[in-house]
Amino acid sequence: MTKRVAILMGSDSDWEAVKPAAAQLKAWDIPFEVRVLSAHRTPAEAAAFAAGAEQAGFGVLIAAAGMAAHLAGAIAANTTLPVIGIPIKGGAAGGLDALLATVQMPSGIPVATVALNGAKNAAVLAAQILAVTDQRLAALLAADRAAMAAQIAKKEEALQAQLAEL
Amino acid sequence: MTKRVAILMGSDSDWEAVKPAAAQLKAWDIPFEVRVLSAHRTPAEAAAFAAGAEQAGFGVLIAAAGMAAHLAGAIAANTTLPVIGIPIKGGAAGGLDALLATVQMPSGIPVATVALNGAKNAAVLAAQILAVTDQRLAALLAADRAAMAAQIAKKEEALQAQLAEL
Amino acid sequence: MTKRVAILMGSDSDWEAVKPAAAQLKAWDIPFEVRVLSAHRTPAEAAAFAAGAEQAGFGVLIAAAGMAAHLAGAIAANTTLPVIGIPIKGGAAGGLDALLATVQMPSGIPVATVALNGAKNAAVLAAQILAVTDQRLAALLAADRAAMAAQIAKKEEALQAQLAEL
Amino acid sequence: MTKRVAILMGSDSDWEAVKPAAAQLKAWDIPFEVRVLSAHRTPAEAAAFAAGAEQAGFGVLIAAAGMAAHLAGAIAANTTLPVIGIPIKGGAAGGLDALLATVQMPSGIPVATVALNGAKNAAVLAAQILAVTDQRLAALLAADRAAMAAQIAKKEEALQAQLAEL
Amino acid sequence: MTKRVAILMGSDSDWEAVKPAAAQLKAWDIPFEVRVLSAHRTPAEAAAFAAGAEQAGFGVLIAAAGMAAHLAGAIAANTTLPVIGIPIKGGAAGGLDALLATVQMPSGIPVATVALNGAKNAAVLAAQILAVTDQRLAALLAADRAAMAAQIAKKEEALQAQLAEL
Amino acid sequence: MTKRVAILMGSDSDWEAVKPAAAQLKAWDIPFEVRVLSAHRTPAEAAAFAAGAEQAGFGVLIAAAGMAAHLAGAIAANTTLPVIGIPIKGGAAGGLDALLATVQMPSGIPVATVALNGAKNAAVLAAQILAVTDQRLAALLAADRAAMAAQIAKKEEALQAQLAEL
Amino acid sequence: MTKRVAILMGSDSDWEAVKPAAAQLKAWDIPFEVRVLSAHRTPAEAAAFAAGAEQAGFGVLIAAAGMAAHLAGAIAANTTLPVIGIPIKGGAAGGLDALLATVQMPSGIPVATVALNGAKNAAVLAAQILAVTDQRLAALLAADRAAMAAQIAKKEEALQAQLAEL
Amino acid sequence: MTKRVAILMGSDSDWEAVKPAAAQLKAWDIPFEVRVLSAHRTPAEAAAFAAGAEQAGFGVLIAAAGMAAHLAGAIAANTTLPVIGIPIKGGAAGGLDALLATVQMPSGIPVATVALNGAKNAAVLAAQILAVTDQRLAALLAADRAAMAAQIAKKEEALQAQLAEL
Repeated sequence: MTKRVAILMGSDSDWEAVKPAAAQLKAWDIPFEVRVLSAHRTPAEAAAFAAGAEQAGFGVLIAAAGMAAHLAGAIAANTTLPVIGIPIKGGAAGGLDALLATVQMPSGIPVATVALNGAKNAAVLAAQILAVTDQRLAALLAADRAAMAAQIAKKEEALQAQLAEL
Repeated sequence: MTKRVAILMGSDSDWEAVKPAAAQLKAWDIPFEVRVLSAHRTPAEAAAFAAGAEQAGFGVLIAAAGMAAHLAGAIAANTTLPVIGIPIKGGAAGGLDALLATVQMPSGIPVATVALNGAKNAAVLAAQILAVTDQRLAALLAADRAAMAAQIAKKEEALQAQLAEL
Repeated sequence: MTKRVAILMGSDSDWEAVKPAAAQLKAWDIPFEVRVLSAHRTPAEAAAFAAGAEQAGFGVLIAAAGMAAHLAGAIAANTTLPVIGIPIKGGAAGGLDALLATVQMPSGIPVATVALNGAKNAAVLAAQILAVTDQRLAALLAADRAAMAAQIAKKEEALQAQLAEL
Repeated sequence: MTKRVAILMGSDSDWEAVKPAAAQLKAWDIPFEVRVLSAHRTPAEAAAFAAGAEQAGFGVLIAAAGMAAHLAGAIAANTTLPVIGIPIKGGAAGGLDALLATVQMPSGIPVATVALNGAKNAAVLAAQILAVTDQRLAALLAADRAAMAAQIAKKEEALQAQLAEL
Repeated sequence: MTKRVAILMGSDSDWEAVKPAAAQLKAWDIPFEVRVLSAHRTPAEAAAFAAGAEQAGFGVLIAAAGMAAHLAGAIAANTTLPVIGIPIKGGAAGGLDALLATVQMPSGIPVATVALNGAKNAAVLAAQILAVTDQRLAALLAADRAAMAAQIAKKEEALQAQLAEL
Repeated sequence: MTKRVAILMGSDSDWEAVKPAAAQLKAWDIPFEVRVLSAHRTPAEAAAFAAGAEQAGFGVLIAAAGMAAHLAGAIAANTTLPVIGIPIKGGAAGGLDALLATVQMPSGIPVATVALNGAKNAAVLAAQILAVTDQRLAALLAADRAAMAAQIAKKEEALQAQLAEL
Repeated sequence: MTKRVAILMGSDSDWEAVKPAAAQLKAWDIPFEVRVLSAHRTPAEAAAFAAGAEQAGFGVLIAAAGMAAHLAGAIAANTTLPVIGIPIKGGAAGGLDALLATVQMPSGIPVATVALNGAKNAAVLAAQILAVTDQRLAALLAADRAAMAAQIAKKEEALQAQLAEL
Repeated sequence: MTKRVAILMGSDSDWEAVKPAAAQLKAWDIPFEVRVLSAHRTPAEAAAFAAGAEQAGFGVLIAAAGMAAHLAGAIAANTTLPVIGIPIKGGAAGGLDALLATVQMPSGIPVATVALNGAKNAAVLAAQILAVTDQRLAALLAADRAAMAAQIAKKEEALQAQLAEL
């Protein structure tokens, strides 16, 4: 049975940025749950969720947060499941605050960080992790790569048409 | 009775950078305690300490951490006592990682951030907070300012001597 | 008697960014005063205000400024009351100018810095400082945390509804 | 059977920084291989390795590189296995070049990025990924957390002794 | 015979930013081709294109990409033709991600990097490279400089008129 | 009579970095004074010095400081004499803190900022300002430029010798 | 006779950002000239202008440019008159490119740098430089400071009215 | 006949960083000249050199400078030959000053920028430019790539030996 993925975010205002992760998991029929859990406003709930996640059947946890983005780290501190961090833009220095606060974890407690607002990639990475032992997902991921390449070929055709009018 | 101050650090390797805070509190006879508590390696202990700090007679909490410096935020999430954050240099981008991870807290949960490696200032700020209702400390702080000014005057004299030899 | 809080800003154009601090203090019935005082355009007035603040019954000073944000530091130089600095976005490098100019204070003269445009948190921090010896405020702060957690729970319910329509 | 982990680095000069990843994998008896493969100097070999990695029994790939750190991305482009990127310090802007070049991957091709020089965490993350379906590893990871917590408790005792001599 | 120039971009969404390069080459009658080739989504096609470019009659390759901008480096890894990189804005830290990922190439594999979104300059640089042994292009480049100077003189006249109304 | 130049620094620890300014002024026989005045530790003395500087016969003021480098701004706030700011390296983000805190002054109160640790250039700029109406200084500045060019010519000769041994 | 001020800009597209400098000089009846001169597109004209500026009766030169902002430095290289640099926003990293390219001048050739888009301050600094030996200007500068302080007092009154309605 | 390459540097103190460019050109028997020419200290000489470079038989110009690194831009402004810029580390913000001042050139005047301290790559790029119409150089460049790949293979063997001792 495919393990579930949890998508956690520090604030419901992150939902627009996080939605592509949910959409991608749904498209691949990967069971998931979405929770609003704040490292700072509901720390006990966040810690409890993380501590019980393995038992609850989760295999990968995705956590999105902006500014002093501690959610992914706070989750990682309370589980040994792989935790994927999505830094959310909008704070200081063009997003460097969220990126550095997510990725610069201390020795022993990693967070697998994706690009700023990289929600879709968080879902792809979650699928890749589950696919290590799930042939159905591995096949879907391979198909996705082929589809991306095909889409680029199509876009190139369209571009050549535009070029004629330069 | 003066409330106690707690000095928390994410790793004992931060002690050299943090020591000036302890030295300053000692010099002013402010009761304090030093603890190694990690937001990531001992999250439950850190949360429990913060949650019980007010009851235990603490008035101000100081937390020092580097890199994705979550300790101050994790402490602040579990208490309404004022929490002072000391970002520790040594990670990425000349210390911006620790600074941004400490200061860019979300609405509702502030961390009173001081300069990178600003341990002495964390102690001064803790004293200022306690001094709002503590005349002894207020007098010590005023004397410290006078001493600083006097010291600058002395240093200037020494400098004038050096200038003659330029 | 609760000590008063002063909210100082370098320019009246900062008012929109600073207003949440005033609103929060008002909501908690903490007496406060708002002043436009510039470290550069009215330095004597700023210094005089700071020097007389303790005598005038203030317990905490909040100072907001952008760019080479010197106001909080200039105030801190003239009082031993705790000074909270709010760096205001809009200058260079995504706000790094105001943040660094506010937080990187020299040894002996701290500024308790909050996030870029973190006006509400400045007020919360001021309340936390006063609450060290004020039970009414301590209770309000605890209630605020509970309200934040409850609000997140509500937002999560709304989100689950949205998820069904994904 | 536990899948193997590959540790790839762009240059043998990265070995000192990367060694803790190998040491950690060895400590946990996770089979691994180390390769020097450059996205720029041996691009065909790097692509071929990545393309054949799943077939060759690898479950997770770790890639370390500095400066315009393309290795992890070049590997990820040629496999759907999870790829962990270790940005190596030493180029420009305090390591921001390697960090941004590793983490800011385009939609569809994630790299699970850890901290600058975060070799040990890359190994821990690889173990966490494999542990999703490997009880032996899950137990080792849990034990490692407990050991970290115990070590902190010990360090704290040592610190209390030092404090007495302040 | 003038060698051809290739303009490559990682995604068709870069076309608006890249178009000025095509327009400039067209204006100078330099034969060129435009391709959408992704270092991450079509790595084999990108490598094959680069490997065959010299044989196919190309003299200079221009590659534009944003975020972890690997395209120029991936192309440069597979050819010894001069490769010009255009970092595209829009990712993190005001474009520093694309700039650093393009320019910070390892020893032995240079990318001739122009300004963020500097598409016109990429075309000018390509023309300068071809002009080393092409008198027609050298004359066009000299004329372009004269035209720029003349245009500035005209703009200055217009400005003097505006000044009168200040 | 040539007006005097004041060299002010926030701390006597800045003296090594500031000394080249004094040496240059001395070499050109420009009368000067050196003072240690802190925007934060001796704010009243700093303000008083600035306010009285014109009356005291000063024509230009140079102020050096590091970190949240407020000294130049605090001086500029209290005089309309030209104030030259030297940001001193050593704080955060490779010196960006001192640079931004010195240069990003609000409308109406400029600080003429030179490079990080640019003490010699501060003296040259001071001389240039005084030279606007001082022929002796104008001649010295012109001679200095000629000397620099001559020195470069000499260094080039030495270099050509080294080249032979490459 | 008051010496003239030159306002130079690298492109007429900088005029909107530069206009406040012209307006301020006009308001104070300081004779000035505005020129479009590019360090890169009209280097000979820029060098010639600078070389002849002193002879032509200029006392201070203001140069504004963005991106790799070389204009101020190119002017300073060809005159010993004081050169004020205005870095213009709009390139990379929130304006850091223009700021660093303007201020980080090598030893011997200073540029007096003001804030990003600090056109008004460039004019004030020019006036301060001329005022060192011009009593009329010194009086105008003093009056300007008084006016700024008065304006702040007025704005504060308006603010107090708004506060009543909070 | 192979055209010559010029290696220009702003200061002889850059020689250590620039030497690998000379060594590489020498190794490939590409005729070259090294000059110390400063955009700020010898602007006329630098402009004259650039303006006469094509006539003097140069095909590519390499310019190295640090801080507000204007040399490459100043050279590019006076020639239509391809100009390669080497930003030199050592100024502010981890080298960002030299990098941004070199690469962010305005429309019409490109500088082909290589990595910070990327002297060897500047020589390789110069060779690539000349090789567009020089078969001998094209063959040398291809051989260099093969040598690099072979060297990596050798280093990998050495590494495997070390691994055994882990």
